[in-house]
Amino acid sequence: MNTVEVVFSPPLYESKLTKSDFIVVIADILRATTSICAALGHGVKSVIPVSGVDAARDYKQKGFLVACERDGKVLDFADTGNSPSDFIKEEYRGKEIVFSTTNGTRAANMAGDAEQIVAGSFLNLTVLGQWLSLQDKNVVIFCSAWKNLFNLEDSVFAGALTDLLLKTGRFTTECDSAKASVDLWSIAGKDLKNYLSKSSHRNRLRHLVSDEDFIFTLTPDSSPSIPLLKNGRFENILKEE
Amino acid sequence: MNTVEVVFSPPLYESKLTKSDFIVVIADILRATTSICAALGHGVKSVIPVSGVDAARDYKQKGFLVACERDGKVLDFADTGNSPSDFIKEEYRGKEIVFSTTNGTRAANMAGDAEQIVAGSFLNLTVLGQWLSLQDKNVVIFCSAWKNLFNLEDSVFAGALTDLLLKTGRFTTECDSAKASVDLWSIAGKDLKNYLSKSSHRNRLRHLVSDEDFIFTLTPDSSPSIPLLKNGRFENILKEE
Repeated sequence: MNTVEVVFSPPLYESKLTKSDFIVVIADILRATTSICAALGHGVKSVIPVSGVDAARDYKQKGFLVACERDGKVLDFADTGNSPSDFIKEEYRGKEIVFSTTNGTRAANMAGDAEQIVAGSFLNLTVLGQWLSLQDKNVVIFCSAWKNLFNLEDSVFAGALTDLLLKTGRFTTECDSAKASVDLWSIAGKDLKNYLSKSSHRNRLRHLVSDEDFIFTLTPDSSPSIPLLKNGRFENILKEE
Repeated sequence: MNTVEVVFSPPLYESKLTKSDFIVVIADILRATTSICAALGHGVKSVIPVSGVDAARDYKQKGFLVACERDGKVLDFADTGNSPSDFIKEEYRGKEIVFSTTNGTRAANMAGDAEQIVAGSFLNLTVLGQWLSLQDKNVVIFCSAWKNLFNLEDSVFAGALTDLLLKTGRFTTECDSAKASVDLWSIAGKDLKNYLSKSSHRNRLRHLVSDEDFIFTLTPDSSPSIPLLKNGRFENILKEE
């Protein structure tokens, strides 16, 4: 029996109970991980996460496609922003895309003690749950959150995934965050869009995230992929399984 | 209109939105704040919180009554442990009690930027909500938690108090933690004892917290008081109002 834990925000990551032999699922629902799932599910070859604007600009000068925004705004040298729908264009299929983002990359860097790091979102919820249940590893779901706060959308996603894992009968939990997240999901899952409309992050990004993007972000299983971080790149390992 | 925010665990305290002119309600439900409310509601004159064992021992040598435990165990020099029922003895009425505890005192020290610090628990839920609604200040409910994790019992209490404050119509919130806590309370409040039986902290303290103590801890309004921290002492200001 393996364990599943939820970390609600980066400052809580070090306090997780599991210290070795675990997979981290990073969740940055309104931005990074939903976009990564959208990209890889729609045939993008790989997504290279970078944390700094300088690194992103360097990649651009080397000829890479670059998605770069800070505080929700697309920077001038970049090809595109970080919205999920920015990545599902036909011309991006088979390409590498460099992706700079405030939250998701920080979480990926912090989770360096994990055996494997994957990106999770509603877009790959079911397939990710199935894949995790076959790995025979402990799982830590790590919410990237926003400015070190707790946020609803990442936490509710964590609950949806925890619920799936517990229902396989292959996982158990002694983690209060995991239990709370399942309860939040039990309320939010009935009408996800309406529920998450009250998220403070959603309100903050309202001028940037269109209603269409918002609905796309919250549509389960619309872009199945398992984005695994390896050698600095997220690649979809779903086809290999 | 004032704001109410919830901080789920000490590492998240610095990220709270309110930076000035606010009251902090500290919650350490299975230990410190429930005990402080029990003591002051039952006529103890004041509770002096101290963070270190050495400080507690010094007070003992000066002749004070001392409650001191670490990791849930009463230390040998102390008069009593930190269970709520330890403080409602007749012989403690009118006395000062020094109280050393891992979590509650740390939170009190961290909340030094607040205008006022009060102790909250189910024991003083309604009267605390009423008092807060009359202060015309922003409110931050600060869960002391356990070893920098999120815990269910403090978070559910935060939800119960947030719910009360929002229903007065004098408070609003843009804090996702506050919203999540109200949702948790909406589930947990239906059968608090049964719900919190699944808390990891409760399971950890099961050998120390009797079922009687547990029920006492979760009984709303059983010991009304407003324990305000002033000059290093919690005193009940309820009578003065």
